[in-house]
Amino acid sequence: MDETSTPETPAPHDGGSGGPERPGITRRGLFGLVGVGTAGLAVGAAAAVGTAAAVDAATAEGDGSGGVHPFYGEHQGGIVTPAQDRLHFAAFDVSSTLDRDGLVGLLQDWSAAAVLLTQGLEIGEGGAVGGSDYAPPSDTGEALGLPAAGLTLTFGFGPTLFTDADGVDRFGIADRRPEALAALPRFQGDALQPAWTGGDLAIQACADNPQVAVHAIRNLSRIAFGRASLRWSQLGFGRTSSTTRAQQTPRNLFGFKDGTANLKAEDTALVEEHVWTGSGDGPAWMTGGSYLVTRKIRMIIENWDRVQLQEQESLVGRTKGEGAPLSGGTEFTEPDFSATGATGEPLMPTASHVRLAHPDQNGGARMLRRGYNFVDGNDELGRLDAGLFFISYQRDPADFIAVQRSLAADGLNEYLRHVGSAVFAVPPGARPGGYVGSGLFA
Amino acid sequence: MDETSTPETPAPHDGGSGGPERPGITRRGLFGLVGVGTAGLAVGAAAAVGTAAAVDAATAEGDGSGGVHPFYGEHQGGIVTPAQDRLHFAAFDVSSTLDRDGLVGLLQDWSAAAVLLTQGLEIGEGGAVGGSDYAPPSDTGEALGLPAAGLTLTFGFGPTLFTDADGVDRFGIADRRPEALAALPRFQGDALQPAWTGGDLAIQACADNPQVAVHAIRNLSRIAFGRASLRWSQLGFGRTSSTTRAQQTPRNLFGFKDGTANLKAEDTALVEEHVWTGSGDGPAWMTGGSYLVTRKIRMIIENWDRVQLQEQESLVGRTKGEGAPLSGGTEFTEPDFSATGATGEPLMPTASHVRLAHPDQNGGARMLRRGYNFVDGNDELGRLDAGLFFISYQRDPADFIAVQRSLAADGLNEYLRHVGSAVFAVPPGARPGGYVGSGLFA
Repeated sequence: MDETSTPETPAPHDGGSGGPERPGITRRGLFGLVGVGTAGLAVGAAAAVGTAAAVDAATAEGDGSGGVHPFYGEHQGGIVTPAQDRLHFAAFDVSSTLDRDGLVGLLQDWSAAAVLLTQGLEIGEGGAVGGSDYAPPSDTGEALGLPAAGLTLTFGFGPTLFTDADGVDRFGIADRRPEALAALPRFQGDALQPAWTGGDLAIQACADNPQVAVHAIRNLSRIAFGRASLRWSQLGFGRTSSTTRAQQTPRNLFGFKDGTANLKAEDTALVEEHVWTGSGDGPAWMTGGSYLVTRKIRMIIENWDRVQLQEQESLVGRTKGEGAPLSGGTEFTEPDFSATGATGEPLMPTASHVRLAHPDQNGGARMLRRGYNFVDGNDELGRLDAGLFFISYQRDPADFIAVQRSLAADGLNEYLRHVGSAVFAVPPGARPGGYVGSGLFA
Repeated sequence: MDETSTPETPAPHDGGSGGPERPGITRRGLFGLVGVGTAGLAVGAAAAVGTAAAVDAATAEGDGSGGVHPFYGEHQGGIVTPAQDRLHFAAFDVSSTLDRDGLVGLLQDWSAAAVLLTQGLEIGEGGAVGGSDYAPPSDTGEALGLPAAGLTLTFGFGPTLFTDADGVDRFGIADRRPEALAALPRFQGDALQPAWTGGDLAIQACADNPQVAVHAIRNLSRIAFGRASLRWSQLGFGRTSSTTRAQQTPRNLFGFKDGTANLKAEDTALVEEHVWTGSGDGPAWMTGGSYLVTRKIRMIIENWDRVQLQEQESLVGRTKGEGAPLSGGTEFTEPDFSATGATGEPLMPTASHVRLAHPDQNGGARMLRRGYNFVDGNDELGRLDAGLFFISYQRDPADFIAVQRSLAADGLNEYLRHVGSAVFAVPPGARPGGYVGSGLFA
């Protein structure tokens, strides 16, 4: 019942200021602030009124309802942050008329808005509706009264931001592109659709309330009007991985626990080694950042549902109920790839997903996954258009590529179709007063 | 964090029975029940193992996480039930080869499965995987470990179930069709798409966890295999109406509170008068039922977001912050349609949505609304494909028709596009041991 925690409704036009002000509990009503501000119609300008002081006081409550994750920091949020329950992911293409200053301005406006949104505040706080009812509201309003809901906003840059499809360096940044940031190679079985692939810019919004995530993407899209427009966007529910040990392993739409062996935030040495870009890894502006891969993977669930249980378990390499490896033990027992059965066959089948994806089979390649299940209605044959919106963060996309190539032999492929793909460089977190990605333009 | 309430994970293949058994807290693992049952591969047959005794013990906890609403009762659940946070709605077309006995069998199998699903139990409990690993699991598994999450399943019959598009009475029920159940007339501005319109059968799944709602529709679709297939389906979040006074009024994607003046379950006389079909209203098999209207309403939110605040409020007839009528007062003050401003113009504008939809302007017509917001990605122009999945329950669809005709003058129409529409007869609740809609075939 996370929508209903407004303890008090501000009176119309005369005071959200009477409402509770603790960050993360409820958002103050912009509609109560008429006459306070001086900002005009420019949403970007209004959003740029930051509240860095409030950020310092913000705390991550971690109770799933009203937690606040600060926007500013060494790393961006939404990577090792405990995985929230809901996703709205958006990829943008920049306008052909945008120049370097315009791109910087967009990132500044997005950052300023993100400071407010992640605290559960409305866009335009301090400027609100321009001092007048005779202006469009700075904030679209549908999250008014809702808590911050643990919202994180994570920004990324696609390869086409650096050099567009025609080879043009639109923003004078082509020579700053990290070598690691390049379009992914074609993988066996790829059935990619342009409508779900690529993008110059990306924003991942994760929250424990879908309306909060949607509100964020909507308002950030609105702020980008004329500068960047949505290329594709995806809602997700039922996260498929835990990013901390405190979270139970959730299930994907094959009905199996997903992410048992995922990297966890507590594994700080492993996170340092496999998630964060180090100072020797490429351009300095990416130090403390990461690389984000998305794959929209449709599951052919009607066919899967006709597969016998033992075969499902063989394909995955784990039991369906407990999630234990077929070599024995319980969920968190390490798989034993050398264990064999009575007739000498490996207990972890050679074509099993868990075996093929395991770091031991991929030269130690690891990534931090934080995907979500999706259902986008159904197709014309009456099959649910459902599957996994895979998201991974890694120090180098080469790790993803290595694992994905191994998975060419995955028996699960018969029930999967990769329809979307994208890769983004995720810069480090913004410093108070700065903006995300500022190092790229320094 | 409603996904993560499994207090204990059953050991693989040897006992969900060790887990907690209180209905509504967690679902028992079907995977622990190997060897217990005797049911074979027929999912329908396995599902038909009902647990009426457990239903009697079920309670509606109402805390939004683990509540259980009993499937059996005088009325179907999901109508006056406190509106849950998430929706998966599905419309089905029956197979051309289905006969009357087959239709009855489908409704029996769906009812038996609904008894289990609404308690947070797996499909096939008591039969499980057929006593063997060498069968497809009876349940698809993705809700294993999740609570019932307040799930309700509400079943409806479309006009085409009684007489198909060619005028054929496939099931010998044409003469039992209620007069009130007919395709809705065309309304001004309708832009209906077949892909979102009509259907022989409907299931509304509402729950406080999207994975639980999706799991229910997926498994009910699976049970229907060969008998009925999905025509369309819709996920929704952020309910737009409260059905009880204990719920705060939520906001639609125009940013306004929606459903302030909705009927509430506590208004028992009004609910009796406006929601439930009475004994004199039509065929006896519908007594205690209702009529369900769905409208998929896309909102042109990018245009809306450029409308000044005062104009937005004039179009709606309420303030955006508080939701008070423009004639004064607070959210729950009744609008005063006779109140005028300094220059004699009505304070509640004549083209305002609230005025045009009000019972006083529609011969007393009222309905119980329980719609949801939706975002289905974005269109090719980069605009969010977002809006309101409108759902209403009424004693007679004529009430919906009257209000919708009034709304032809609604100033909001410039920002709305009705792309889907359907109407269903919702029979009364099933009695223990019976099945939903049994009266139609008696």
